[in-house]
Amino acid sequence: MFFASDNSSGATPEVMAALSRANDGYTRGYGADDLTARVTDTLRQLFEAPDAVVHLVATGTAANSLALACLVQPWQAVFCHRHAHIAEDECGAPEFFSAGAKLVLVDGDHGLMNGQALANAVESTGGSVHGVQPGALSLTNVTEAGTVYTPAQIADLTALARAHGLPCHLDGARFANALAATGATPAEMTWKAGIDVLSFGGTKNGCLGVEAVIFFDPAKDWEFQLRRKRAGHLFSKTRYLAAQLDGYLHDGLWLTRAAHANAMAARLAQGLAQMPGIRQTHPVQANVMFPEWPTGTHARLEAAGAVYYRCSAPEGREGARLVTSWSTTEADVDAFQSALRG
Amino acid sequence: MFFASDNSSGATPEVMAALSRANDGYTRGYGADDLTARVTDTLRQLFEAPDAVVHLVATGTAANSLALACLVQPWQAVFCHRHAHIAEDECGAPEFFSAGAKLVLVDGDHGLMNGQALANAVESTGGSVHGVQPGALSLTNVTEAGTVYTPAQIADLTALARAHGLPCHLDGARFANALAATGATPAEMTWKAGIDVLSFGGTKNGCLGVEAVIFFDPAKDWEFQLRRKRAGHLFSKTRYLAAQLDGYLHDGLWLTRAAHANAMAARLAQGLAQMPGIRQTHPVQANVMFPEWPTGTHARLEAAGAVYYRCSAPEGREGARLVTSWSTTEADVDAFQSALRG
Amino acid sequence: MFFASDNSSGATPEVMAALSRANDGYTRGYGADDLTARVTDTLRQLFEAPDAVVHLVATGTAANSLALACLVQPWQAVFCHRHAHIAEDECGAPEFFSAGAKLVLVDGDHGLMNGQALANAVESTGGSVHGVQPGALSLTNVTEAGTVYTPAQIADLTALARAHGLPCHLDGARFANALAATGATPAEMTWKAGIDVLSFGGTKNGCLGVEAVIFFDPAKDWEFQLRRKRAGHLFSKTRYLAAQLDGYLHDGLWLTRAAHANAMAARLAQGLAQMPGIRQTHPVQANVMFPEWPTGTHARLEAAGAVYYRCSAPEGREGARLVTSWSTTEADVDAFQSALRG
Amino acid sequence: MFFASDNSSGATPEVMAALSRANDGYTRGYGADDLTARVTDTLRQLFEAPDAVVHLVATGTAANSLALACLVQPWQAVFCHRHAHIAEDECGAPEFFSAGAKLVLVDGDHGLMNGQALANAVESTGGSVHGVQPGALSLTNVTEAGTVYTPAQIADLTALARAHGLPCHLDGARFANALAATGATPAEMTWKAGIDVLSFGGTKNGCLGVEAVIFFDPAKDWEFQLRRKRAGHLFSKTRYLAAQLDGYLHDGLWLTRAAHANAMAARLAQGLAQMPGIRQTHPVQANVMFPEWPTGTHARLEAAGAVYYRCSAPEGREGARLVTSWSTTEADVDAFQSALRG
Repeated sequence: MFFASDNSSGATPEVMAALSRANDGYTRGYGADDLTARVTDTLRQLFEAPDAVVHLVATGTAANSLALACLVQPWQAVFCHRHAHIAEDECGAPEFFSAGAKLVLVDGDHGLMNGQALANAVESTGGSVHGVQPGALSLTNVTEAGTVYTPAQIADLTALARAHGLPCHLDGARFANALAATGATPAEMTWKAGIDVLSFGGTKNGCLGVEAVIFFDPAKDWEFQLRRKRAGHLFSKTRYLAAQLDGYLHDGLWLTRAAHANAMAARLAQGLAQMPGIRQTHPVQANVMFPEWPTGTHARLEAAGAVYYRCSAPEGREGARLVTSWSTTEADVDAFQSALRG
Repeated sequence: MFFASDNSSGATPEVMAALSRANDGYTRGYGADDLTARVTDTLRQLFEAPDAVVHLVATGTAANSLALACLVQPWQAVFCHRHAHIAEDECGAPEFFSAGAKLVLVDGDHGLMNGQALANAVESTGGSVHGVQPGALSLTNVTEAGTVYTPAQIADLTALARAHGLPCHLDGARFANALAATGATPAEMTWKAGIDVLSFGGTKNGCLGVEAVIFFDPAKDWEFQLRRKRAGHLFSKTRYLAAQLDGYLHDGLWLTRAAHANAMAARLAQGLAQMPGIRQTHPVQANVMFPEWPTGTHARLEAAGAVYYRCSAPEGREGARLVTSWSTTEADVDAFQSALRG
Repeated sequence: MFFASDNSSGATPEVMAALSRANDGYTRGYGADDLTARVTDTLRQLFEAPDAVVHLVATGTAANSLALACLVQPWQAVFCHRHAHIAEDECGAPEFFSAGAKLVLVDGDHGLMNGQALANAVESTGGSVHGVQPGALSLTNVTEAGTVYTPAQIADLTALARAHGLPCHLDGARFANALAATGATPAEMTWKAGIDVLSFGGTKNGCLGVEAVIFFDPAKDWEFQLRRKRAGHLFSKTRYLAAQLDGYLHDGLWLTRAAHANAMAARLAQGLAQMPGIRQTHPVQANVMFPEWPTGTHARLEAAGAVYYRCSAPEGREGARLVTSWSTTEADVDAFQSALRG
Repeated sequence: MFFASDNSSGATPEVMAALSRANDGYTRGYGADDLTARVTDTLRQLFEAPDAVVHLVATGTAANSLALACLVQPWQAVFCHRHAHIAEDECGAPEFFSAGAKLVLVDGDHGLMNGQALANAVESTGGSVHGVQPGALSLTNVTEAGTVYTPAQIADLTALARAHGLPCHLDGARFANALAATGATPAEMTWKAGIDVLSFGGTKNGCLGVEAVIFFDPAKDWEFQLRRKRAGHLFSKTRYLAAQLDGYLHDGLWLTRAAHANAMAARLAQGLAQMPGIRQTHPVQANVMFPEWPTGTHARLEAAGAVYYRCSAPEGREGARLVTSWSTTEADVDAFQSALRG
């Protein structure tokens, strides 16, 4: 009953097998190996973006920060949701990588940025030399609240940003879950919706540690490579990053695994919906949920072996974050619900 | 005949096996898993340093830069060899991580820092507010020239630095090879010789991508953790970094593998020594060598399938860098020598 | 009728005279001149702080940013009012000088930080490695809204910060006006109220361009000097910064001038209070006010030659910022009121 | 007998008079005043560069660092002379302002960069992702050794840089002395010789503290303004920077003053040349010289009241740096020579 995070899960058998296959013999280092070329090509095809620039790193924070640093100058602002991962969970990495750019926090219900709030934020930023200037928009899908933007919602926000000349980044740490939830294609969710650069997550959905940064405009290719090297994120044995994606992307596995995680979340949410005194703080749309239940429930669940994060809640209530993953089983879900019932 | 770099080799079977073992079930993320605790404890024992702080990252550049950033202020200087990896091969990573500290380049034959040159450099740095101030010493063992410091040589240089109040860092990307070459213990080569923080390399000697940063003084523990997170170098699935070291350190494997690489280099060097017109630019003491041979040799070797880096050489001569690894075989060495003979 | 800013005024005759006096002969550069020693000593006496470290710079942004950079690490947060000068009017200078620290914006009416909001902000910052850590508190007196903290109000906020181990900075660009408004002594408004470092403004109150950074704890002396030099804020001919303060501080001039500016603001505010349809957005407590009047008033005032900044206002209304200074005359105030009456 | 530095001198009467004139009445702040517009226009005319962008700052370090930060990316190198002011005397300011760019030190006799050494340095920088990339060339005229580049010498070095696509900066802290020494026009010494941006010094030649940064290509205008503001180098009362240049540039004063300083240096050098046992370390071409004399001379000179910097010298010898300025008199020179004779 491990619902703490999808990064508590291991790697899929297919990813492990690909890793073993890649271990054979000698290869050129630093991304010059054939496997890296192959998986980046696979990604270009998946995204219907033959000119896209694709580079691999090992963590989501590296992917987000390196991408954003290529989009903004140090005296510019990144507009992001108040509770975005880049704002709350990366220990100031965007500021570090960008040499001091500022995150301007935008409100919106359920982790989804409000268009009017974004417009207000952009319009009240810059203009004179005294303040930082508008730099870029950063969205997250699946959001930190577990909700999912449709391509149309993303397009609305990026259109607003683009009207001010701002490039747009998508933090896709759970990109596969967002696609599985909406049925959108990779292209529809990204460049067709106005996204310039994507952090394409693998780690949370069954890899060991790999993310691809995908620039749909190749202009930043060399800058990204220099920034990555300079930040210690260029692997000498890049084949082991590529191998993970090789196993991950093969035969649609990445989407199948994500769909499974979402299905387990839906099963769990359905169960919770039928229990009295439990409500969801946000709509459950992918593989992350934030239920709230009566005080005392944590103790019962944890005694039964359930593992998850506690969240703050109103007096008399307890909050939780539950995350399902590719390896969550129906039995896990059912056992959790049993424990919940007491 | 792959002598381009030890990072062109794959991972050892033991490391791969440990990775598979670690893939079972759920674990806490971000370094809170049992395996991470276990391998960091193993390292403390190996170094006879029960209070040492040990943290894992995936690349040598990350290890070096994060360690150095904990040692120097932005307005200070790191004294390193003119051809140190941190000076020439990390695209300015030390400057990036330290918010602009300066590398002061110190001369010395064969990649070994000259003590008088270090003394001169330290003494001519700082004093007034107009220049940067002395910050730290950084040494490399095995050096970039393939030579090896003895513990006594390291102690001489660190004593000089310590007399000026400077902490001392050791870039040990090929630390195992240096130990194998000298017979020194881990403790003798580090804290007993005045080293405060070590980049303990695993990648080049049969891991996929893992380095341990070992602080012998625990004062910088929390700062390091925050810097690592902020730089995107904290892995959510840290178990896979730990697993590599689990396989690597088991049963002295790391030293056995390094001794093998050194032995293959010795065999190769012996062969070359017997061929007319070939000389070594630097003494061959570990697993890296820089032979120089007559013009035309590159063409012959490469036609035979040999892979290695070319180096500059005087008119009429050609230079090369040859690196052996845990996976180099006697057959590889002999084939190379045959090709060389023509 | 120039009410745009107190930095639109010139320098007082006393400051200009001091500048001329200081121009005689040769002096040591970079702060080693006698005059710099003398005025820093004068400041120590004024603040009843014999051990204080005093350094001069030419701009308020330099004073604030250099001071804050000495208080926080790059991975820490500065808590400041949402509309603080450091947040809105320095183009990201705190982020630049601190190598990427984060400003956490705290709410509060009329430019005064709310204690509960500060407590909430501090308590929800840090704790785990994933977020930035609490770093320092920065207050402003006179606030950007033209209101004034009493020493007791400052002490309440700094006590809260100190309970979390945070050092406290005071942006005193209009420090003299705050003292004149409250009758507090320099010591009461600063170190006796928990302030660790003060940006002591001179520019807005009749100097050409000089601010003193005063550390009540001398520990950061050398670090500050290196940061100042490295930022290009150490003047070779420091005597001309010192001279300004020499003229400024002589015979209580600085407080007299500030009291005059406050009195002119009070006179202006009294006049406005008697006119129908005009209200003050914030209490008028020093030399800055934010009146709001009916649409059409700007045109009338500007036609009459009044100069000031326009602010946003509700439909049908117009907003303004009016600032008085040491050189504002009763005639200026009366002429403005006449123009306002139409 | 004050020969410590030209920044030990005061300001010229004409500069002080201009400051007084500028003190009258109210002006717009932050560079929007008429006087700033006027002096920047005067500079454009002096440089025959109607499209040049001109911005004022107060220190040479600010001018150099802000200019360079506009030319190079953090992962690039600035090529400068080994003993350039930016390398030795600015406490790492270029690294700070550029977010960690690297200075690559180029040799050359007497402070003049050697063309072949520059070519070697540029050619061995960059190429792969592992090292920093070539970024910009920075020259200094008058050099730190007191020598002077002719326009043709500058053109040779900039041609080499431009062949590699590098923009070129000139540190002109003593620009007027260089023009007075060579007879070159401002345009000939800068954009006609391949210079893209100039730090035009005023401070050392009779101002209080002002330097103009002149970009001959206007593309970096807005970036420079944002960087200046963000670094705390935008003055609210900019009129006082402009006023200094107003007095400085009027009626050719700046060149007359510099020619006088150079003439005093020539007189001093001629005297020294006739004394036995004294030699100049570098040719004396402007207003700075580095004589070397027998041990014991320092004591005699200092007893007589001479003030200057001591430099290192071979056994049995003593080194000195002597700087003349606009305010050095023939009597000063003669008194120094008398004291030297003993």
